[in-house]
Amino acid sequence: MSHVLYITASARGEASHSRQISGEFIEAWLQAHPGDTVTSRDLAKQDIPHVTEEFIGAMYAPAEARTPAQKEVLALSDTLIAELKAADIYVFAVPMYNFSVPSVFKAYIDNVARVNETWTMSYEGLLKNKKAFVVTARGGGGYGPGEVRAAANFEDPYLQAAFGFLGVTDMTFVHINNTSNGEEAPKSLAAAREQIKTLAA
Amino acid sequence: MSHVLYITASARGEASHSRQISGEFIEAWLQAHPGDTVTSRDLAKQDIPHVTEEFIGAMYAPAEARTPAQKEVLALSDTLIAELKAADIYVFAVPMYNFSVPSVFKAYIDNVARVNETWTMSYEGLLKNKKAFVVTARGGGGYGPGEVRAAANFEDPYLQAAFGFLGVTDMTFVHINNTSNGEEAPKSLAAAREQIKTLAA
Repeated sequence: MSHVLYITASARGEASHSRQISGEFIEAWLQAHPGDTVTSRDLAKQDIPHVTEEFIGAMYAPAEARTPAQKEVLALSDTLIAELKAADIYVFAVPMYNFSVPSVFKAYIDNVARVNETWTMSYEGLLKNKKAFVVTARGGGGYGPGEVRAAANFEDPYLQAAFGFLGVTDMTFVHINNTSNGEEAPKSLAAAREQIKTLAA
Repeated sequence: MSHVLYITASARGEASHSRQISGEFIEAWLQAHPGDTVTSRDLAKQDIPHVTEEFIGAMYAPAEARTPAQKEVLALSDTLIAELKAADIYVFAVPMYNFSVPSVFKAYIDNVARVNETWTMSYEGLLKNKKAFVVTARGGGGYGPGEVRAAANFEDPYLQAAFGFLGVTDMTFVHINNTSNGEEAPKSLAAAREQIKTLAA
Protein backbone atom coordinates (compact mmCIF):
# COMPACT_ATOMS: atom_id res chain seq x y z
CA MET A 1 0.00 0.00 0.00
CA SER A 2 1.22 3.43 -0.94
CA HIS A 3 0.70 6.96 0.28
CA VAL A 4 -0.10 9.60 -2.31
CA LEU A 5 0.65 13.33 -2.06
CA TYR A 6 -1.71 15.29 -4.30
CA ILE A 7 -0.75 18.92 -4.98
CA THR A 8 -2.90 21.29 -7.03
CA ALA A 9 -1.81 24.78 -8.06
CA SER A 10 -4.22 26.32 -10.56
CA ALA A 11 -5.79 29.62 -9.56
CA ARG A 12 -8.90 28.73 -11.53
CA GLY A 13 -10.76 26.70 -8.92
CA GLU A 14 -13.36 24.32 -10.33
CA ALA A 15 -12.75 25.65 -13.84
CA SER A 16 -9.20 24.30 -13.76
CA HIS A 17 -8.53 21.53 -16.27
CA SER A 18 -5.45 20.33 -14.41
CA ARG A 19 -7.45 20.10 -11.17
CA GLN A 20 -10.30 18.27 -12.92
CA ILE A 21 -8.19 15.67 -14.70
CA SER A 22 -5.85 15.11 -11.75
CA GLY A 23 -8.90 14.66 -9.52
CA GLU A 24 -10.20 11.98 -11.86
CA PHE A 25 -6.75 10.38 -11.78
CA ILE A 26 -6.82 10.26 -7.97
CA GLU A 27 -10.29 8.63 -8.11
CA ALA A 28 -9.15 6.07 -10.65
CA TRP A 29 -5.96 5.42 -8.68
CA LEU A 30 -7.88 4.73 -5.47
CA GLN A 31 -10.23 2.39 -7.31
CA ALA A 32 -7.25 0.45 -8.61
CA HIS A 33 -5.35 0.70 -5.28
CA PRO A 34 -8.10 0.68 -2.65
CA GLY A 35 -5.68 0.47 0.30
CA ASP A 36 -3.77 3.61 -0.67
CA THR A 37 -4.13 6.86 1.21
CA VAL A 38 -3.98 10.44 -0.04
CA THR A 39 -2.83 13.76 1.42
CA SER A 40 -4.13 16.71 -0.60
CA ARG A 41 -2.80 20.23 -0.63
CA ASP A 42 -4.22 23.01 -2.80
CA LEU A 43 -1.53 25.67 -3.18
CA ALA A 44 -4.12 28.09 -4.59
CA LYS A 45 -5.93 28.09 -1.26
CA GLN A 46 -2.97 29.23 0.81
CA ASP A 47 -0.39 31.88 0.25
CA ILE A 48 2.88 29.99 -0.18
CA PRO A 49 5.39 32.71 0.67
CA HIS A 50 8.40 33.70 -1.38
CA VAL A 51 11.64 32.75 0.37
CA THR A 52 13.24 35.53 2.39
CA GLU A 53 16.71 36.42 3.63
CA GLU A 54 15.69 34.92 6.99
CA PHE A 55 14.61 31.70 5.26
CA ILE A 56 17.93 31.36 3.45
CA GLY A 57 19.85 32.06 6.66
CA ALA A 58 17.82 29.49 8.59
CA MET A 59 18.09 26.92 5.80
CA TYR A 60 21.90 27.06 5.77
CA ALA A 61 22.24 27.14 9.57
CA PRO A 62 23.00 23.71 11.06
CA ALA A 63 19.70 22.23 12.27
CA GLU A 64 20.99 21.89 15.85
CA ALA A 65 22.10 25.54 15.95
CA ARG A 66 18.85 27.12 14.75
CA THR A 67 17.22 29.74 16.95
CA PRO A 68 13.51 29.47 17.78
CA ALA A 69 12.92 32.31 15.29
CA GLN A 70 14.77 30.39 12.57
CA LYS A 71 12.76 27.26 13.31
CA GLU A 72 9.59 29.30 12.98
CA VAL A 73 10.73 30.68 9.61
CA LEU A 74 11.18 27.11 8.37
CA ALA A 75 7.95 25.71 9.87
CA LEU A 76 5.88 25.68 6.68
CA SER A 77 8.84 24.35 4.69
CA ASP A 78 9.26 21.58 7.31
CA THR A 79 5.61 20.62 6.86
CA LEU A 80 5.80 20.62 3.06
CA ILE A 81 8.99 18.55 3.10
CA ALA A 82 7.53 16.08 5.62
CA GLU A 83 4.62 15.55 3.22
CA LEU A 84 7.03 14.88 0.35
CA LYS A 85 9.05 12.43 2.43
CA ALA A 86 5.97 10.61 3.74
CA ALA A 87 4.55 9.91 0.28
CA ASP A 88 5.55 7.23 -2.22
CA ILE A 89 3.53 8.67 -5.09
CA TYR A 90 3.20 12.31 -6.08
CA VAL A 91 0.38 13.71 -8.17
CA PHE A 92 1.06 17.30 -9.18
CA ALA A 93 -1.48 19.32 -11.15
CA VAL A 94 0.39 22.25 -12.68
CA PRO A 95 -1.00 24.64 -15.30
CA MET A 96 1.37 26.59 -17.53
CA TYR A 97 1.35 30.32 -16.75
CA ASN A 98 3.50 32.46 -19.00
CA PHE A 99 5.46 29.48 -20.32
CA SER A 100 6.40 28.10 -16.89
CA VAL A 101 4.83 26.98 -13.63
CA PRO A 102 2.56 29.40 -11.71
CA SER A 103 4.48 31.52 -9.22
CA VAL A 104 2.79 29.70 -6.35
CA PHE A 105 4.26 26.41 -7.59
CA LYS A 106 7.69 28.04 -7.93
CA ALA A 107 7.28 29.27 -4.35
CA TYR A 108 6.49 25.68 -3.37
CA ILE A 109 9.70 24.49 -5.06
CA ASP A 110 11.73 27.27 -3.41
CA ASN A 111 10.30 26.19 -0.04
CA VAL A 112 10.98 22.46 -0.38
CA ALA A 113 14.41 22.58 -2.06
CA ARG A 114 16.40 22.59 1.17
CA VAL A 115 19.96 21.53 1.77
CA ASN A 116 20.32 18.43 3.99
CA GLU A 117 16.58 17.87 3.74
CA THR A 118 15.89 17.29 0.04
CA TRP A 119 19.37 17.74 -1.45
CA THR A 120 22.94 17.57 -0.17
CA MET A 121 26.01 19.72 -0.72
CA SER A 122 27.35 16.88 -2.89
CA TYR A 123 24.25 17.28 -5.07
CA GLU A 124 22.50 14.11 -4.01
CA GLY A 125 18.71 14.26 -4.17
CA LEU A 126 17.14 12.94 -0.98
CA LEU A 127 13.60 12.24 -2.21
CA LYS A 128 14.33 8.69 -3.31
CA ASN A 129 12.12 5.95 -4.70
CA LYS A 130 9.26 8.31 -5.47
CA LYS A 131 7.01 8.07 -8.49
CA ALA A 132 5.49 11.31 -9.77
CA PHE A 133 2.53 11.85 -12.06
CA VAL A 134 2.20 15.40 -13.33
CA VAL A 135 -0.90 16.75 -15.04
CA THR A 136 -0.19 19.95 -16.96
CA ALA A 137 -2.66 22.25 -18.71
CA ARG A 138 -1.79 24.81 -21.35
CA GLY A 139 -3.89 27.30 -23.23
CA GLY A 140 -2.11 26.48 -26.48
CA GLY A 141 -0.39 23.51 -28.03
CA GLY A 142 2.85 22.55 -29.74
CA TYR A 143 5.00 22.49 -26.60
CA GLY A 144 6.21 18.91 -27.05
CA PRO A 145 9.78 18.00 -28.05
CA GLY A 146 10.38 19.04 -31.66
CA GLU A 147 7.05 20.89 -31.88
CA VAL A 148 6.61 24.53 -32.84
CA ARG A 149 6.64 25.97 -29.29
CA ALA A 150 9.10 23.51 -27.74
CA ALA A 151 11.64 26.30 -27.14
CA ALA A 152 9.06 28.24 -25.14
CA ASN A 153 8.26 25.33 -22.82
CA PHE A 154 9.74 26.04 -19.38
CA GLU A 155 7.16 23.98 -17.55
CA ASP A 156 7.59 20.19 -17.72
CA PRO A 157 11.32 20.31 -18.60
CA TYR A 158 11.73 22.63 -15.63
CA LEU A 159 9.81 20.31 -13.31
CA GLN A 160 12.05 17.44 -14.39
CA ALA A 161 15.16 19.48 -13.62
CA ALA A 162 13.96 20.87 -10.30
CA PHE A 163 12.52 17.65 -8.89
CA GLY A 164 15.26 15.58 -10.51
CA PHE A 165 17.74 17.57 -8.42
CA LEU A 166 15.75 16.53 -5.34
CA GLY A 167 15.94 12.86 -6.38
CA VAL A 168 12.59 12.50 -8.13
CA THR A 169 13.63 11.02 -11.45
CA ASP A 170 10.54 8.95 -12.23
CA MET A 171 8.05 11.49 -13.61
CA THR A 172 5.17 10.71 -15.94
CA PHE A 173 3.38 13.60 -17.62
CA VAL A 174 -0.21 13.95 -18.76
CA HIS A 175 -0.49 17.07 -20.90
CA ILE A 176 -3.79 18.82 -21.54
CA ASN A 177 -3.22 21.17 -24.48
CA ASN A 178 -5.20 23.91 -26.20
CA THR A 179 -7.46 24.61 -23.22
CA SER A 180 -8.18 28.06 -24.70
CA ASN A 181 -9.31 26.54 -27.99
CA GLY A 182 -12.98 25.52 -27.87
CA GLU A 183 -12.63 23.10 -30.75
CA GLU A 184 -9.38 21.42 -29.69
CA ALA A 185 -9.78 21.33 -25.90
CA PRO A 186 -12.35 18.47 -25.81
CA LYS A 187 -10.05 16.27 -27.90
CA SER A 188 -7.13 16.94 -25.57
CA LEU A 189 -9.26 16.29 -22.49
CA ALA A 190 -10.50 13.01 -23.96
CA ALA A 191 -6.92 11.93 -24.70
CA ALA A 192 -5.84 12.86 -21.17
CA ARG A 193 -8.72 10.82 -19.72
CA GLU A 194 -7.65 7.79 -21.74
CA GLN A 195 -4.09 8.23 -20.54
CA ILE A 196 -4.96 8.50 -16.85
CA LYS A 197 -7.10 5.35 -17.05
CA THR A 198 -4.08 3.43 -18.27
CA LEU A 199 -1.73 5.05 -15.76
CA ALA A 200 -4.00 4.46 -12.77
CA ALA A 201 -4.64 0.82 -13.58
CA MET B 1 17.15 61.23 -22.35
CA SER B 2 15.82 57.89 -21.20
CA HIS B 3 13.88 56.59 -18.26
CA VAL B 4 15.21 53.48 -16.54
CA LEU B 5 13.17 50.91 -14.61
CA TYR B 6 15.39 49.08 -12.12
CA ILE B 7 13.95 45.89 -10.62
CA THR B 8 15.73 43.83 -7.98
CA ALA B 9 14.53 40.45 -6.75
CA SER B 10 17.11 38.75 -4.55
CA ALA B 11 16.02 37.84 -1.03
CA ARG B 12 19.59 38.34 0.17
CA GLY B 13 19.52 42.09 0.79
CA GLU B 14 22.95 43.74 0.83
CA ALA B 15 24.64 40.34 0.47
CA SER B 16 23.08 39.91 -2.97
CA HIS B 17 25.57 39.84 -5.83
CA SER B 18 22.92 40.64 -8.44
CA ARG B 19 21.80 43.68 -6.40
CA GLN B 20 25.40 44.83 -5.90
CA ILE B 21 26.50 44.58 -9.54
CA SER B 22 23.23 45.95 -10.93
CA GLY B 23 23.51 48.88 -8.50
CA GLU B 24 26.99 49.59 -9.83
CA PHE B 25 25.58 49.37 -13.36
CA ILE B 26 22.91 51.96 -12.53
CA GLU B 27 25.61 54.26 -11.11
CA ALA B 28 27.80 53.86 -14.18
CA TRP B 29 24.79 54.32 -16.46
CA LEU B 30 23.83 57.60 -14.80
CA GLN B 31 27.40 58.85 -15.03
CA ALA B 32 27.38 58.12 -18.76
CA HIS B 33 23.79 59.40 -19.21
CA PRO B 34 23.46 62.18 -16.65
CA GLY B 35 20.02 63.30 -17.86
CA ASP B 36 18.43 59.88 -17.42
CA THR B 37 16.01 59.13 -14.60
CA VAL B 38 15.46 55.90 -12.66
CA THR B 39 12.47 54.25 -11.01
CA SER B 40 13.55 51.49 -8.61
CA ARG B 41 11.46 48.64 -7.28
CA ASP B 42 12.76 45.97 -4.94
CA LEU B 43 10.49 42.94 -5.25
CA ALA B 44 12.05 41.44 -2.12
CA LYS B 45 10.66 44.31 -0.04
CA GLN B 46 7.04 43.78 -0.99
CA ASP B 47 4.94 40.68 -1.24
CA ILE B 48 4.12 40.38 -4.96
CA PRO B 49 1.02 38.17 -4.80
CA HIS B 50 0.40 35.03 -6.80
CA VAL B 51 -2.34 35.54 -9.38
CA THR B 52 -5.80 34.43 -8.26
CA GLU B 53 -9.02 33.33 -9.92
CA GLU B 54 -10.30 36.89 -9.40
CA PHE B 55 -7.19 38.28 -11.09
CA ILE B 56 -7.64 36.05 -14.14
CA GLY B 57 -11.34 36.94 -14.36
CA ALA B 58 -10.59 40.65 -14.11
CA MET B 59 -7.72 40.43 -16.61
CA TYR B 60 -9.92 38.85 -19.28
CA ALA B 61 -12.92 41.14 -18.60
CA PRO B 62 -13.11 44.06 -21.07
CA ALA B 63 -11.54 47.08 -19.35
CA GLU B 64 -14.73 49.15 -19.71
CA ALA B 65 -16.84 46.38 -18.12
CA ARG B 66 -14.72 45.82 -15.01
CA THR B 67 -16.39 46.17 -11.62
CA PRO B 68 -14.77 48.30 -8.92
CA ALA B 69 -13.72 45.06 -7.21
CA GLN B 70 -12.06 43.84 -10.42
CA LYS B 71 -10.25 47.14 -10.83
CA GLU B 72 -8.99 46.80 -7.28
CA VAL B 73 -7.73 43.27 -7.97
CA LEU B 74 -5.70 44.63 -10.90
CA ALA B 75 -4.42 47.76 -9.13
CA LEU B 76 -0.91 46.50 -8.37
CA SER B 77 -0.65 44.94 -11.83
CA ASP B 78 -1.71 48.29 -13.33
CA THR B 79 1.06 50.04 -11.41
CA LEU B 80 3.71 47.50 -12.41
CA ILE B 81 2.66 47.65 -16.08
CA ALA B 82 2.60 51.47 -16.06
CA GLU B 83 6.20 51.37 -14.83
CA LEU B 84 7.18 49.02 -17.66
CA LYS B 85 5.45 51.20 -20.25
CA ALA B 86 6.97 54.42 -18.91
CA ALA B 87 10.54 53.18 -19.10
CA ASP B 88 12.82 52.92 -22.15
CA ILE B 89 15.50 50.90 -20.40
CA TYR B 90 15.02 47.99 -18.03
CA VAL B 91 17.61 46.80 -15.54
CA PHE B 92 16.57 43.52 -13.93
CA ALA B 93 18.67 41.89 -11.20
CA VAL B 94 17.59 38.26 -11.01
CA PRO B 95 19.36 35.53 -9.05
CA MET B 96 18.87 31.90 -9.99
CA TYR B 97 16.89 29.97 -7.38
CA ASN B 98 16.47 26.28 -8.04
CA PHE B 99 17.44 26.60 -11.71
CA SER B 100 14.96 29.38 -12.51
CA VAL B 101 13.92 32.84 -11.36
CA PRO B 102 12.90 33.36 -7.70
CA SER B 103 9.17 32.86 -7.16
CA VAL B 104 8.77 36.58 -6.48
CA PHE B 105 10.08 37.36 -9.95
CA LYS B 106 7.74 34.75 -11.46
CA ALA B 107 4.90 36.43 -9.56
CA TYR B 108 6.04 39.73 -11.10
CA ILE B 109 5.87 38.18 -14.58
CA ASP B 110 2.45 36.65 -13.86
CA ASN B 111 1.24 40.09 -12.75
CA VAL B 112 2.55 42.04 -15.75
CA ALA B 113 1.73 39.55 -18.55
CA ARG B 114 -1.75 40.90 -19.24
CA VAL B 115 -3.79 40.62 -22.39
CA ASN B 116 -4.43 43.95 -24.16
CA GLU B 117 -1.88 45.58 -21.87
CA THR B 118 1.41 43.82 -22.57
CA TRP B 119 0.34 41.23 -25.16
CA THR B 120 -2.57 40.78 -27.56
CA MET B 121 -4.75 37.84 -28.53
CA SER B 122 -2.86 37.78 -31.84
CA TYR B 123 0.34 37.32 -29.80
CA GLU B 124 1.80 40.74 -30.37
CA GLY B 125 4.01 41.99 -27.56
CA LEU B 126 3.11 45.53 -26.55
CA LEU B 127 6.28 46.55 -24.72
CA LYS B 128 8.05 47.89 -27.80
CA ASN B 129 11.38 49.64 -28.30
CA LYS B 130 12.64 48.68 -24.87
CA LYS B 131 16.22 47.75 -24.07
CA ALA B 132 16.77 45.36 -21.17
CA PHE B 133 19.92 44.65 -19.19
CA VAL B 134 19.66 41.62 -16.92
CA VAL B 135 22.15 40.82 -14.18
CA THR B 136 21.91 37.21 -13.05
CA ALA B 137 23.70 35.51 -10.16
CA ARG B 138 24.14 31.80 -9.73
CA GLY B 139 25.75 29.74 -7.01
CA GLY B 140 27.41 27.48 -9.57
CA GLY B 141 28.69 27.75 -13.10
CA GLY B 142 28.43 26.04 -16.46
CA TYR B 143 24.95 27.29 -17.34
CA GLY B 144 25.95 28.88 -20.65
CA PRO B 145 24.99 27.43 -24.06
CA GLY B 146 26.89 24.20 -24.63
CA GLU B 147 28.22 24.12 -21.08
CA VAL B 148 27.78 21.29 -18.60
CA ARG B 149 24.64 22.63 -16.88
CA ALA B 150 23.04 24.31 -19.92
CA ALA B 151 20.09 21.90 -19.83
CA ALA B 152 19.37 22.91 -16.22
CA ASN B 153 19.25 26.63 -17.00
CA PHE B 154 15.64 27.83 -16.84
CA GLU B 155 16.58 31.36 -15.88
CA ASP B 156 17.93 33.57 -18.70
CA PRO B 157 16.37 31.50 -21.53
CA TYR B 158 13.09 31.75 -19.65
CA LEU B 159 13.40 35.51 -19.23
CA GLN B 160 14.02 35.83 -22.96
CA ALA B 161 10.90 33.79 -23.74
CA ALA B 162 8.63 35.50 -21.21
CA PHE B 163 9.67 39.08 -21.93
CA GLY B 164 10.07 38.35 -25.63
CA PHE B 165 6.38 37.43 -25.66
CA LEU B 166 5.69 40.88 -24.20
CA GLY B 167 7.74 42.54 -26.96
CA VAL B 168 11.06 42.93 -25.16
CA THR B 169 13.45 41.34 -27.63
CA ASP B 170 16.58 43.38 -26.90
CA MET B 171 18.02 41.76 -23.77
CA THR B 172 21.65 41.86 -22.72
CA PHE B 173 22.78 39.56 -19.92
CA VAL B 174 25.52 39.97 -17.36
CA HIS B 175 26.04 36.65 -15.60
CA ILE B 176 27.72 36.36 -12.22
CA ASN B 177 28.62 32.70 -11.77
CA ASN B 178 29.97 30.56 -8.95
CA THR B 179 28.84 32.89 -6.17
CA SER B 180 28.99 29.94 -3.74
CA ASN B 181 32.62 29.24 -4.66
CA GLY B 182 34.99 31.41 -2.64
CA GLU B 183 37.81 30.96 -5.12
CA GLU B 184 35.83 31.51 -8.33
CA ALA B 185 33.36 34.20 -7.23
CA PRO B 186 35.85 37.12 -7.21
CA LYS B 187 36.89 36.31 -10.80
CA SER B 188 33.28 36.26 -11.94
CA LEU B 189 32.50 39.51 -10.12
CA ALA B 190 35.54 41.18 -11.70
CA ALA B 191 34.46 40.03 -15.15
CA ALA B 192 30.92 41.30 -14.53
CA ARG B 193 32.30 44.69 -13.43
CA GLU B 194 34.32 44.94 -16.65
CA GLN B 195 31.24 44.06 -18.67
CA ILE B 196 28.95 46.62 -17.02
CA LYS B 197 31.55 49.37 -17.56
CA THR B 198 31.44 48.68 -21.28
CA LEU B 199 27.65 48.34 -21.36
CA ALA B 200 27.00 51.55 -19.42
CA ALA B 201 29.36 53.68 -21.51
